Amino acid sequence: MAMQMQDLQDLYVHKLQDIYSAEQQALQLMQQSVGMVQSPELRQGIEMHIQQTEQQIQRLEQIFQKLGQQPGGEECEGMKGLVQEAQKLMQQDASPEVLEAGMIACQQAVEHYEIAGYGTARTYAQLLGDQEAVQLLEQTLEEEKMTDEKLTQIAQQINVEAMNA
Amino acid sequence: MAMQMQDLQDLYVHKLQDIYSAEQQALQLMQQSVGMVQSPELRQGIEMHIQQTEQQIQRLEQIFQKLGQQPGGEECEGMKGLVQEAQKLMQQDASPEVLEAGMIACQQAVEHYEIAGYGTARTYAQLLGDQEAVQLLEQTLEEEKMTDEKLTQIAQQINVEAMNA
Repeated sequence: MAMQMQDLQDLYVHKLQDIYSAEQQALQLMQQSVGMVQSPELRQGIEMHIQQTEQQIQRLEQIFQKLGQQPGGEECEGMKGLVQEAQKLMQQDASPEVLEAGMIACQQAVEHYEIAGYGTARTYAQLLGDQEAVQLLEQTLEEEKMTDEKLTQIAQQINVEAMNA
Repeated sequence: MAMQMQDLQDLYVHKLQDIYSAEQQALQLMQQSVGMVQSPELRQGIEMHIQQTEQQIQRLEQIFQKLGQQPGGEECEGMKGLVQEAQKLMQQDASPEVLEAGMIACQQAVEHYEIAGYGTARTYAQLLGDQEAVQLLEQTLEEEKMTDEKLTQIAQQINVEAMNA
């Protein structure tokens, strides 16, 4: 079913719906993966980002409300693929250290998808003069970048453990 | 079918195979999308990145050869989702300007997937002491980051056109 996409406002709403679906899927993935993690540092990192993601979803709902639009209706195909990739990894015959190293890599791909998405949505909001949305999206964008950096840090130790597994 | 993933070397080869599949899929997407683009700047940007991607694929083949491993066998689910997302967009009832703005956003998601992937592979190669691979992966990583920045620049004009469409 073809959507009407005649101007940047349509594209903006479409992008927000895409991110909204992506966040829901990412949240489910983290809730699933956190139980498989042995490293306390990684578990803590995921738990923190679960909480952050719940706030990020609320921010999106706030933007939708002001726009008078519904958040649902879109299923984000991009995130669906990233989640499938992570789930495929979890089914491998992997040592615990390798599994965790691989899970971090999957989660960083998720963060990068979100960095791209929020960067685009923020730019659209700026052009459309939706200043409140700009601030909300910017806040989330910074959190996603920081999460990516934190995962890089956590990976350092876990990658070495995976190497010596 | 479960893969053997017992140490970082296994994960490294798996990640390289994932990126190799991702690049092949990204290449096909660009070859498909370039024909739909009207903006000369965007078309030129995609054409340049098609050439770059062909070189990046060759770099990966060089790494596989040295490792005595095969590049194929993996289908990257993450990139598959990103490609589906782009193809869904191309089927919408969109104005040409909106289509191009949306295509840039999709392509930036592709670049970010690759940035995450090459960053991870480069880190694994460093730990495993594969210095030649580190250099090749680093080179591609920089190209992906520059492509993402260039797309942000090209988007400035196209987003404004989409807004006034």
